[in-house]
Amino acid sequence: MKTMERKKSAMRRPAKRKNVGVYRGAREPKSEEKRDENALRFAALGGLEEIGRNMMFLEYKDEIIIIDLGLQFPEEETPGIDYIIPDISYLEKKKESIKGIVITHAHLDHIGAAPYLMERLGNPLIYTTELTKEIMKRRHDEFLHAPRLNFKIVKSGEILTIGEYFSAEFFDVQHNIPDTVGLVIGTPVGNILHPGEYKLDRTKNGKSKTLDTFKEIGKKNILAMLQDSTGATKPGYSIPEETVVENIETIFKEAPGRIVVGTFASLLDRLYEIIKVAEKMGKVVATSGFSMKTNVQIAQNLGYMKIGKGVMINLEDIEKYDDKKIVILCTGAQGEPDASLMRIGNGEHRHVRTKPGDTFIFSSSVIPGNERSVQTLKDNLSRQGAIIHTSETMDIHSSGHAPQEEIKEVVKIINPKFFIPIHGYYFMRATNIGLAIQSGVKKENAILVDNGDIIEFTKTEAKITGERVPASSVFVDGLGVGDIGEVVLRDRRTLAEEGMIVVIASINRKTGKVIKNPDIISRGFIYLKENKELLDEIRRRVRMIIGRVPHYQDVDVDYIKSLIKDQVAEFLYNKTNRRPMVLPVIIEI
Amino acid sequence: MKTMERKKSAMRRPAKRKNVGVYRGAREPKSEEKRDENALRFAALGGLEEIGRNMMFLEYKDEIIIIDLGLQFPEEETPGIDYIIPDISYLEKKKESIKGIVITHAHLDHIGAAPYLMERLGNPLIYTTELTKEIMKRRHDEFLHAPRLNFKIVKSGEILTIGEYFSAEFFDVQHNIPDTVGLVIGTPVGNILHPGEYKLDRTKNGKSKTLDTFKEIGKKNILAMLQDSTGATKPGYSIPEETVVENIETIFKEAPGRIVVGTFASLLDRLYEIIKVAEKMGKVVATSGFSMKTNVQIAQNLGYMKIGKGVMINLEDIEKYDDKKIVILCTGAQGEPDASLMRIGNGEHRHVRTKPGDTFIFSSSVIPGNERSVQTLKDNLSRQGAIIHTSETMDIHSSGHAPQEEIKEVVKIINPKFFIPIHGYYFMRATNIGLAIQSGVKKENAILVDNGDIIEFTKTEAKITGERVPASSVFVDGLGVGDIGEVVLRDRRTLAEEGMIVVIASINRKTGKVIKNPDIISRGFIYLKENKELLDEIRRRVRMIIGRVPHYQDVDVDYIKSLIKDQVAEFLYNKTNRRPMVLPVIIEI
Repeated sequence: MKTMERKKSAMRRPAKRKNVGVYRGAREPKSEEKRDENALRFAALGGLEEIGRNMMFLEYKDEIIIIDLGLQFPEEETPGIDYIIPDISYLEKKKESIKGIVITHAHLDHIGAAPYLMERLGNPLIYTTELTKEIMKRRHDEFLHAPRLNFKIVKSGEILTIGEYFSAEFFDVQHNIPDTVGLVIGTPVGNILHPGEYKLDRTKNGKSKTLDTFKEIGKKNILAMLQDSTGATKPGYSIPEETVVENIETIFKEAPGRIVVGTFASLLDRLYEIIKVAEKMGKVVATSGFSMKTNVQIAQNLGYMKIGKGVMINLEDIEKYDDKKIVILCTGAQGEPDASLMRIGNGEHRHVRTKPGDTFIFSSSVIPGNERSVQTLKDNLSRQGAIIHTSETMDIHSSGHAPQEEIKEVVKIINPKFFIPIHGYYFMRATNIGLAIQSGVKKENAILVDNGDIIEFTKTEAKITGERVPASSVFVDGLGVGDIGEVVLRDRRTLAEEGMIVVIASINRKTGKVIKNPDIISRGFIYLKENKELLDEIRRRVRMIIGRVPHYQDVDVDYIKSLIKDQVAEFLYNKTNRRPMVLPVIIEI
Repeated sequence: MKTMERKKSAMRRPAKRKNVGVYRGAREPKSEEKRDENALRFAALGGLEEIGRNMMFLEYKDEIIIIDLGLQFPEEETPGIDYIIPDISYLEKKKESIKGIVITHAHLDHIGAAPYLMERLGNPLIYTTELTKEIMKRRHDEFLHAPRLNFKIVKSGEILTIGEYFSAEFFDVQHNIPDTVGLVIGTPVGNILHPGEYKLDRTKNGKSKTLDTFKEIGKKNILAMLQDSTGATKPGYSIPEETVVENIETIFKEAPGRIVVGTFASLLDRLYEIIKVAEKMGKVVATSGFSMKTNVQIAQNLGYMKIGKGVMINLEDIEKYDDKKIVILCTGAQGEPDASLMRIGNGEHRHVRTKPGDTFIFSSSVIPGNERSVQTLKDNLSRQGAIIHTSETMDIHSSGHAPQEEIKEVVKIINPKFFIPIHGYYFMRATNIGLAIQSGVKKENAILVDNGDIIEFTKTEAKITGERVPASSVFVDGLGVGDIGEVVLRDRRTLAEEGMIVVIASINRKTGKVIKNPDIISRGFIYLKENKELLDEIRRRVRMIIGRVPHYQDVDVDYIKSLIKDQVAEFLYNKTNRRPMVLPVIIEI
């Protein structure tokens, strides 16, 4: 193992994620300039300083169109938070101007914030594809008070007029969920390309349908191109889905018993290919996990998956078939605690018990932060005799995001005047800028902005205005949206690292004397039952502190509290080298 | 991004890391069997269900030798913990039998627990190499109350007698810190090989010194081989250090300004190579970070690094040199908050301010769990105009652990009768077993045991006895060693996710009536100032709960507390869908 000296303090707090440094847009902000009424304004409300929470808008005079309504998953630094969604306060004030929302595809980082935001945006018309609509509706149904959504279904090749100033031409791209679209937005200043999230998935003969599509788009005189940066730091080309499916087929052939495939419920393209392999080999397929089940059903109902009769079976019926016939498609390849695969690993699944000789295929990459959970899952399955295949040893997963060489190919074909990297952390977006410049975009036309920065486009120019729209993180926790702020999160982090101790002293309001021995409760600090001496010493000190305070007319409770807090904290630090949160309470009787 | 439906509950708790399943040793435990007095006993106290905390021992009659005294770094599930060390209660009781401790190399997962454990083990003689000794001593000096350590320096090729029954022959292996050794332990039942942590680092002409060494060891009739599993799931061969250094040299040549190399302070081999490159190119080198500085100094003092005069400079002096001459070696490539590189990224470093055109080389892989911190670090450096190279795009790091093909090569050469995978999670160890079997070890002789399991070896047999020695995790937090248990950690996790609320009601001891309006304090749950109504409602409910309790002779405080706890928790869950820890306090006056 690579070890290192880590200082104690380094271990005890999560890393500060301070973003510092000079601003590095292609143009310097000129905050004194006035808003140009004839310019097109662009800003992202999320997605530019994180992975997820994708949402951006274009504004021309009194018309706005929005692209995507994504959420972000919580991180180590946001403990207990369910989701992080964009701050829409700028758009909320202008909701009459919103002419429509375009959704590029049905992943949660593009649709997940809709139930929280649609009403506040005035519930505008949503332009999207059939499958995306169905998945959005299914999710929306879980939110009882959310308004009924209105959709306009779009098809590849179609050009729609949105409002007075905008048009949108949609085109299919290969991602890893069907019905993913990119779009060319026609505006009074020129064409803006949002290519969606795509990869150039090549077949054996080197063909890519998506590449052909971009060749057509390249003829449209694109003023500005927005480009996903998720793959921008990955060298080379995509692993072809054909290769992935071939490798999975090989594993299927060698499997001595049942096969369990763990992957994302949203990887519908992959799932369909796996079902086809199973069908070809005379196997039957069951799904496990709510989202896996519903997504496959939606895709089947809409005709995106054409599956022979009798291939899909209920999970309850797997015991009726020979083990060698069984394929189970499962959620939970990230080690999520309540998902199917973890339940199987833990021996808690209602219908599936691991048997020696079961083959498990982890057809996904591990999202940073999930490594330990996935490790435990693999350990548990392995302990039960399972055979395990991961993408570490074989190409059984391929990302849906174009890596470096594919981004460069597409930028060359599109040849946009301006280039704006979206979706990704700063370093990823900065690297993306480098790829664009290598592909012919002029250095001064490659524009690196953060969430909330406004770019104004005219027919010939683009500038960062220096103005900003609010674009901070809004936290969803339980039923609360936006009611958890930095203070609460900071407390959660401290409580997690150090625990807390509450010291309760009852004093006589008149005399200021301690009435009874102070009460102490503590959690996450030390096991109190085994530390009676420490407790007695704290009580003694608290009585002493209060006893020493001179008593005039009124008892200064705040003063006593701050004395107790400081002195107990110092005492505990000296005794234990720990810094629990000390919370003094004075009860005046 | 690959998104997925995650259930709310899944987001709110860390994954349960339950290890389940059938036992899978090569032999089934036979707990009824008696201890064989003429057998050699082996057990690991750590390292077999984690990465780190490596420690194991061999016992023959009344003699014990210990190998390594490692620590483990804390994880998401052990918030606030500094280190995790092995449980030595079995050895502590037999400390008179301990004839010596062998330390294979100076990484913290092999030496880090020494300051906590040496006294309790009776401070036995430590057998190790010169560099390891110096690094252990330097670390030991930080612990004021730890006993002075006694060392016996060993050299490659040397055979030492330890106690009456054991001998140890040491040999050098290539890892990534100098003076790493493996050893053949001679015992009355046969030779046990602990090859240390190694890789077969091949030069351009395909030679590997370590491989040649193993060819010699292979002649020694090895009864049992212990094998590191860290690389057991990685296919292929090691990236040669020569390649790594060549790539770093290329980056050096292209760098327009200063060069900062972030890596582990323990990667002394790599550091030396980098210093040599710098020297060759006429550059000067400064170190930043306490461990980086001391490790390089120790290596220089002992002659492991031969560096020309004037090459190493003080960090304070870097401004005296042309930027193109400067190379800075830094700790903190894992994004550790207090390490040098993070300070530079945050603009908080005393001597180094990032300038546009500075080149940063991250010459390490990212340890799972550190990805986000490293991302922020790269973002911050990138925002300040830095050029960044990581091992994602170029081979500028190579692991010190043999991957699959190299493990197989060595097992074939050694041809041991028994094979025991060590160092790594279950899946890694199970995979390692598979490699051994492919390399000629008989299936029934490949033995998969967990921490604490005892294997008894005779000249011809090995069996898992079914007995176990205590081998749980011992947590170090501040000055406390072992005083934090599962209860405290569980509370910390709950506090982190949901926060807490303390409800304090003062009641008249005689009448059982509420004396004053209940006090409420809360942290990490909700921002109280903005939720006055919720607070008032809690107070009202608490008064009501207490008012309703029938009052006989004595007030049943525990009963009232449990009522308050349940009902406040339920109320809050209904209102907010959150489950803060509710802590009721009743003050009887």
